Amino acid sequence: MFGIYDHPEAVEMTYLALFAQQHRGQESAGICSSDHNQITRYAGLGLVTEVFTPRHLEQLRNPIAVGHVRYSTTGSPNIHNSQPLLVEYARGQVAVCHNGNLINAGLLRHTYEEQGHIFQTTSDTEVIIHLLADPEHMNMSDAISHSLTHLQGSFSLLVLLPDRIEATRDPYGIRPLCIGRLANGSYCVASETIALDVIDASYVRDVEPGEIVTIDKDGLHSRFYVDASRYRPAHCIFEMVYFADPSSSVFRQNVHQARLAMGSQLAREAPVKADLVIAVPNCARCAAIGYANQSGIPVGRGFTTSHYTGRSFIMPSQASRDLAVKMKLNVIREAVGGKRLVVIEDSVVRGTTTRGKMGALRTAGAKEIHLRVASPPIRHGCYFGIDFPDPSILVATGRTVEQIREYLGVDSLHYLSIEGMLDCARMVPSKYCTACFSGKYPIDVTTPTEKFALERRQLRLFT
Amino acid sequence: MFGIYDHPEAVEMTYLALFAQQHRGQESAGICSSDHNQITRYAGLGLVTEVFTPRHLEQLRNPIAVGHVRYSTTGSPNIHNSQPLLVEYARGQVAVCHNGNLINAGLLRHTYEEQGHIFQTTSDTEVIIHLLADPEHMNMSDAISHSLTHLQGSFSLLVLLPDRIEATRDPYGIRPLCIGRLANGSYCVASETIALDVIDASYVRDVEPGEIVTIDKDGLHSRFYVDASRYRPAHCIFEMVYFADPSSSVFRQNVHQARLAMGSQLAREAPVKADLVIAVPNCARCAAIGYANQSGIPVGRGFTTSHYTGRSFIMPSQASRDLAVKMKLNVIREAVGGKRLVVIEDSVVRGTTTRGKMGALRTAGAKEIHLRVASPPIRHGCYFGIDFPDPSILVATGRTVEQIREYLGVDSLHYLSIEGMLDCARMVPSKYCTACFSGKYPIDVTTPTEKFALERRQLRLFT
Amino acid sequence: MFGIYDHPEAVEMTYLALFAQQHRGQESAGICSSDHNQITRYAGLGLVTEVFTPRHLEQLRNPIAVGHVRYSTTGSPNIHNSQPLLVEYARGQVAVCHNGNLINAGLLRHTYEEQGHIFQTTSDTEVIIHLLADPEHMNMSDAISHSLTHLQGSFSLLVLLPDRIEATRDPYGIRPLCIGRLANGSYCVASETIALDVIDASYVRDVEPGEIVTIDKDGLHSRFYVDASRYRPAHCIFEMVYFADPSSSVFRQNVHQARLAMGSQLAREAPVKADLVIAVPNCARCAAIGYANQSGIPVGRGFTTSHYTGRSFIMPSQASRDLAVKMKLNVIREAVGGKRLVVIEDSVVRGTTTRGKMGALRTAGAKEIHLRVASPPIRHGCYFGIDFPDPSILVATGRTVEQIREYLGVDSLHYLSIEGMLDCARMVPSKYCTACFSGKYPIDVTTPTEKFALERRQLRLFT
Amino acid sequence: MFGIYDHPEAVEMTYLALFAQQHRGQESAGICSSDHNQITRYAGLGLVTEVFTPRHLEQLRNPIAVGHVRYSTTGSPNIHNSQPLLVEYARGQVAVCHNGNLINAGLLRHTYEEQGHIFQTTSDTEVIIHLLADPEHMNMSDAISHSLTHLQGSFSLLVLLPDRIEATRDPYGIRPLCIGRLANGSYCVASETIALDVIDASYVRDVEPGEIVTIDKDGLHSRFYVDASRYRPAHCIFEMVYFADPSSSVFRQNVHQARLAMGSQLAREAPVKADLVIAVPNCARCAAIGYANQSGIPVGRGFTTSHYTGRSFIMPSQASRDLAVKMKLNVIREAVGGKRLVVIEDSVVRGTTTRGKMGALRTAGAKEIHLRVASPPIRHGCYFGIDFPDPSILVATGRTVEQIREYLGVDSLHYLSIEGMLDCARMVPSKYCTACFSGKYPIDVTTPTEKFALERRQLRLFT
Repeated sequence: MFGIYDHPEAVEMTYLALFAQQHRGQESAGICSSDHNQITRYAGLGLVTEVFTPRHLEQLRNPIAVGHVRYSTTGSPNIHNSQPLLVEYARGQVAVCHNGNLINAGLLRHTYEEQGHIFQTTSDTEVIIHLLADPEHMNMSDAISHSLTHLQGSFSLLVLLPDRIEATRDPYGIRPLCIGRLANGSYCVASETIALDVIDASYVRDVEPGEIVTIDKDGLHSRFYVDASRYRPAHCIFEMVYFADPSSSVFRQNVHQARLAMGSQLAREAPVKADLVIAVPNCARCAAIGYANQSGIPVGRGFTTSHYTGRSFIMPSQASRDLAVKMKLNVIREAVGGKRLVVIEDSVVRGTTTRGKMGALRTAGAKEIHLRVASPPIRHGCYFGIDFPDPSILVATGRTVEQIREYLGVDSLHYLSIEGMLDCARMVPSKYCTACFSGKYPIDVTTPTEKFALERRQLRLFT
Repeated sequence: MFGIYDHPEAVEMTYLALFAQQHRGQESAGICSSDHNQITRYAGLGLVTEVFTPRHLEQLRNPIAVGHVRYSTTGSPNIHNSQPLLVEYARGQVAVCHNGNLINAGLLRHTYEEQGHIFQTTSDTEVIIHLLADPEHMNMSDAISHSLTHLQGSFSLLVLLPDRIEATRDPYGIRPLCIGRLANGSYCVASETIALDVIDASYVRDVEPGEIVTIDKDGLHSRFYVDASRYRPAHCIFEMVYFADPSSSVFRQNVHQARLAMGSQLAREAPVKADLVIAVPNCARCAAIGYANQSGIPVGRGFTTSHYTGRSFIMPSQASRDLAVKMKLNVIREAVGGKRLVVIEDSVVRGTTTRGKMGALRTAGAKEIHLRVASPPIRHGCYFGIDFPDPSILVATGRTVEQIREYLGVDSLHYLSIEGMLDCARMVPSKYCTACFSGKYPIDVTTPTEKFALERRQLRLFT
Repeated sequence: MFGIYDHPEAVEMTYLALFAQQHRGQESAGICSSDHNQITRYAGLGLVTEVFTPRHLEQLRNPIAVGHVRYSTTGSPNIHNSQPLLVEYARGQVAVCHNGNLINAGLLRHTYEEQGHIFQTTSDTEVIIHLLADPEHMNMSDAISHSLTHLQGSFSLLVLLPDRIEATRDPYGIRPLCIGRLANGSYCVASETIALDVIDASYVRDVEPGEIVTIDKDGLHSRFYVDASRYRPAHCIFEMVYFADPSSSVFRQNVHQARLAMGSQLAREAPVKADLVIAVPNCARCAAIGYANQSGIPVGRGFTTSHYTGRSFIMPSQASRDLAVKMKLNVIREAVGGKRLVVIEDSVVRGTTTRGKMGALRTAGAKEIHLRVASPPIRHGCYFGIDFPDPSILVATGRTVEQIREYLGVDSLHYLSIEGMLDCARMVPSKYCTACFSGKYPIDVTTPTEKFALERRQLRLFT
Repeated sequence: MFGIYDHPEAVEMTYLALFAQQHRGQESAGICSSDHNQITRYAGLGLVTEVFTPRHLEQLRNPIAVGHVRYSTTGSPNIHNSQPLLVEYARGQVAVCHNGNLINAGLLRHTYEEQGHIFQTTSDTEVIIHLLADPEHMNMSDAISHSLTHLQGSFSLLVLLPDRIEATRDPYGIRPLCIGRLANGSYCVASETIALDVIDASYVRDVEPGEIVTIDKDGLHSRFYVDASRYRPAHCIFEMVYFADPSSSVFRQNVHQARLAMGSQLAREAPVKADLVIAVPNCARCAAIGYANQSGIPVGRGFTTSHYTGRSFIMPSQASRDLAVKMKLNVIREAVGGKRLVVIEDSVVRGTTTRGKMGALRTAGAKEIHLRVASPPIRHGCYFGIDFPDPSILVATGRTVEQIREYLGVDSLHYLSIEGMLDCARMVPSKYCTACFSGKYPIDVTTPTEKFALERRQLRLFT
């Protein structure tokens, strides 16, 4: 997610910034831009580099722009759900980019439908616009603030109006959002600081939980739509563990440094005698270096990775499809043969891929495999923006660590403790959401039952 | 380059094997397959995953197949030059895949043109087919052998006839070519062993310099079209240094191990006091680990790399194009800030990219930058299959190492010595071609002058 | 526009029926289909044969379907405006196909926007869905009837709900809509009878002005949402003159027969001594035969037409673009040279094309050109579904017939009289809308002024 | 086929001229252009408007151009066979466009293959280039003349060399080829005069049988490669009957006039009492008018035709595919119901389409159907450029006219006599090839048997 105000190359900057944040969503990509009066949109299914041609960028050429890359979900990708959403309402055009997940979207949608509103997507984001257009809100002096107070869940939002950008975060600060500034004075906003780096913008500060930052011709303005001090922050620790890019800082901490620390902590919690530390590419490399530094075991390279995996494989037969899985990682036989290995993983979700990799190391002649995971076991669903599969198919659900070890076929297995993980984070432990590991949700998502049942219906539609 | 004989999923295997060897050529990809009687072809510009759809693979379905990925050259990519070439001559259909470069292609073409032959490509590969079809050769009992004796330069070749594959290498063994076998007994041939790994084939042996290996319904047959003992081998050392995949073995040596050794040797030749060893992604990581192991300086991660660079950028304006260069590598500021760095590069060609990276490290706060290159300076052109730019724009041409250091903006710079590099290779030094480093060519390419002048004209057309 | 209920090949039937009615709209094509529970949609810009691939038809495979071809308008074609529109509202999914034009769309939209509704298209059709979803209507026993009473203008509508099709016409019956039945008993609805012919359906009857016909599992049901007897019918006479296909029957009359009669009447009103009657292809051929039969002058062929004009030309330079205009009609020099010609045109709008054709005949050696137009001069805009250009650029605006004759460069020119035209129609003259010829609109579109001003703003958006 | 020399918009002119001649070939389209030094090519499968985008025309921009539309054949369309062929031989580049069929292509190809030549297409045109490149010819002062004397069969050829166009016809003049001149003095050549008309070129004269016309910077030059007076002309009468566009003149006669005459002659040969003459669209309309004029029976319109058949249908199921056949022609029920019809066809090949149309007329209520075909029964194959199906599936093979009548389901059936047809042609009967009707071939294609057997093998490959 990215927005930039009043820059001659706003659209190119947005394109670059989306590309740098491609890891945050590969399902669809879109840009809306404004010439101060009229908003233009282009979006499509696929990667940023697949969706946009030079002609599209040219047609979008305008000094104000926001863009979005959408998360790949379990449902079939749908062009109508691609963001930014752009609609017309009584006050003119409005476009919205949303990162996060609204847990009361179903309820809100139901209410508006009963009032005669019609919906054209199955995305939870659409209700935000209906809130904005609600006469109760739109006729008030600060329609956005009034609208936001009705949302429950996680949301980092960019709202593009013809003449300004409004950037905001939920009161818990679950998803990141930061502000940057370019050499020419233009302000921009982004999910991660990597987006600022690639366009040579300097980091200004994070958008605060509960804050609305307006960027318009008079510069930057701040206001709060809630008293944020009444909320306990719940920054998503999984951004640190896996989701964000290592070179980014999110929640005021560099991700690479956090992962190095988690690797070191893992070495302290679960030491082992071995010849070589290797990482499962690519992200786990930070933690692997941390582990190696702490343990004194040399770090090496056990796999090579293809540079050409931008597009997925097309394999007409099952046999060849099985082989295709191997393509993404090639074991370097000579590096691991006869060695006692410490293998570092960032996190293990379903376990199937990890199991395959461990088998490949074994086939290549590894003498011992000691798997160390630089995060705790994932045993709970996320309702705030990470698309984990159903808990029933997580490898750690209903399995002890010993049973997981057996399933993965390794000689020993240790996960980082929740406490150890939080020790590596910059803020006090209470400021993070660890729900996927601990089951402790920052917002109550389970009662009343009826409401949750409704959500379930909606979740099928929305996520 | 890959070929496989008599396998129910020959075409899928070829697709996977080409994908695994995509680093050997990104300009075009093609497959020819045979049902023992009739050869079918499909080829296109782009990456393997871009060229082939499931429909194409289905239409190619046949038990015998060869495939090729073509090297990006300085000339404009041309669909007519994509391989395998497929033609009809007096003895029926023949398809050819060629890896290497023929230095007498111009002369041969001229001769055949004067005899009334017509040409449809500007590729040097086409003359091979004209040699095969020459009545002087085609009526002899072993037309291929007779044809090959007329070729000068480097060539690893796969010749597909409706009922067999012929695989051969030039007498110097400049480019690699190996034989594998699948569980069902089918034989295959590939440029690198990584292609065997991805299809679960076991490595049998290399095709020998000067050897022709025939794969047909009776299995594997070998013959030699020259007395190879009369030639001194000249295996391309640049395959070890940079070109081949680390998990492959070429010239009977694992590439990763060779690069580890080169890194260690570099540490011995050019030690330095520093806090951290980092690699310029991705290949240099092997050498970086070698340097770290030998020096005792911890290895770390200085850059993150995008996973989504399968397609190149499209940037309408120059300013944004400059920014786009940065996209491929993002410095992890926190990892390098305030540090004395040993930066490992595999090789430096033009120097512009390396220079940019060094600048990025400096901007991110690196205290000292000690660049160590795990190969000698490249100062000479290659006429045998590596597409270096014109020697005049190589950074090492006409510059001392000190001048290069200044240009790249680093605190110290050392290259691996030619002797040190050869020490890391498995065979005796005399068996490698080091021409790009040493200027010593295994085949005379400079006399007689007239001939070379002609070649020059042809080189414009061919390479 | 076409709909079909409960047929195993409903989607293919719809595809064929849209193709047969392609002359009714070339801007976009779309189909929605239902499996009795869930509606699926595919639409795109272009001709039916360009928009749909076999894969699309396969994905749409369902027993209930409606489809639409959209009229090319002066505004830029917009994928978001392509029909059928499909949305979700409180009662589930609904898809709408609309043929016609709503003159109060702007007012209705404004009202709903003030109530907080949001809009995603600039098409007038979208307000129909907002009316349906309005709690005032949707909670009544017959929401559709209540909604329709709020529409002003022309509309033949197909409303697809998951389990039924509702087909309706405005109280004036401005646009056609008929019912057919297939051999297996399935009912279908279509704008023109040609759509029934191509799928071997027999004509049952027209949907009546003010009637709603429901097709569901119990067959065909009829009701009236207004007392239609209180409205004077206003069938668009331009459907007879030009718009509908000659083989269709609309308003219970065969179009070819009507045009034959108009040609005969034209011969009675404006006889001339000549050698040959020729038609300007292709529609005018009916009238030309009528003129020839009545006058006794033999009918001949003066032009040949290209069979390959499905896609428009792409011509980079102006000079070549001018030539391209000639491509659609080639004069047969030998047929017209030295002849006194009666040239028959259906209607003349801008006059530029006709002028070009007359020039071409002159160049080819025609001795005399007597242009006879089988309809009256067009001098007024249409607000009910025919996309005439702005009246100011109609050739007949502000020009006498004599001045038009001069402009077109012909020896004599006669238009069919309004009375003569209406004599050829099957019903009494008062049952037709002749506004484009006579300026007499069936619905008041000019007062109150304020309202019309608003419409003007909306017209910019909608048409 | 079209060529133009030295015109600033040569490529656009070629595009237009190919479009105007699209009826001569729908399989592929291609253009080669030259800047006097270098020839550039673009070709693709499909219609002219599908193959070329503005970008292609821009890339081809050059003052000299030739283009070709290729005939749809029974074999699968093949991009490698699309014309113009462009190759490089000892004297540089050469491109060839060929309209016709070479009956000794197989023999020539065999001979060249034995000399070591390789072939890349399965088109008979490729041997022409091998003849040109043959040292025996290419070193003579007039290589083209020497090459042409070796060709047997029909050929109208355009040979593009970097600095000139050579246009030639076989000694029998089987296929047409004419010369035109533009206002700026540029010369052009085309298969049919319609191509001259659309670019405002005036007709100069036909290229003569056996003549080579060179267009270069010095204008137009003529020479003869054979003594044409020794050959009896054999102009393809089927061009007059069906193949050429009515507005063209071929063999110095306007096609429309010829067809009018054939219609009149048919009325004299086979009169009948009837109410209405109708044509089976579109070409038969000329003959229908002729029949009506002669018989005094009024001509009418029985079918309407779709304007949108540029692309063929895609119909996943058989049932819908059967319906799709109906799409191309819609009977106007009201025009034919209760009438005694004279139905005019140009020619009947397989009979299946005609049979379907007659059935449709019957279903629509025709009282009597008297089919009159404005050409004789086709009972023999064509080896000179018309792609009839195998004689065994022609409707007239092994059937008497009475049996054909029964099969087609009409009340009476008459064909035009061969003598009557030839009476309508401008030249003496002996100057036409009537082989498909009479079995009398202008060139012996049946002996010696061995040779023909070889041709049969080649025909499989080539046509």
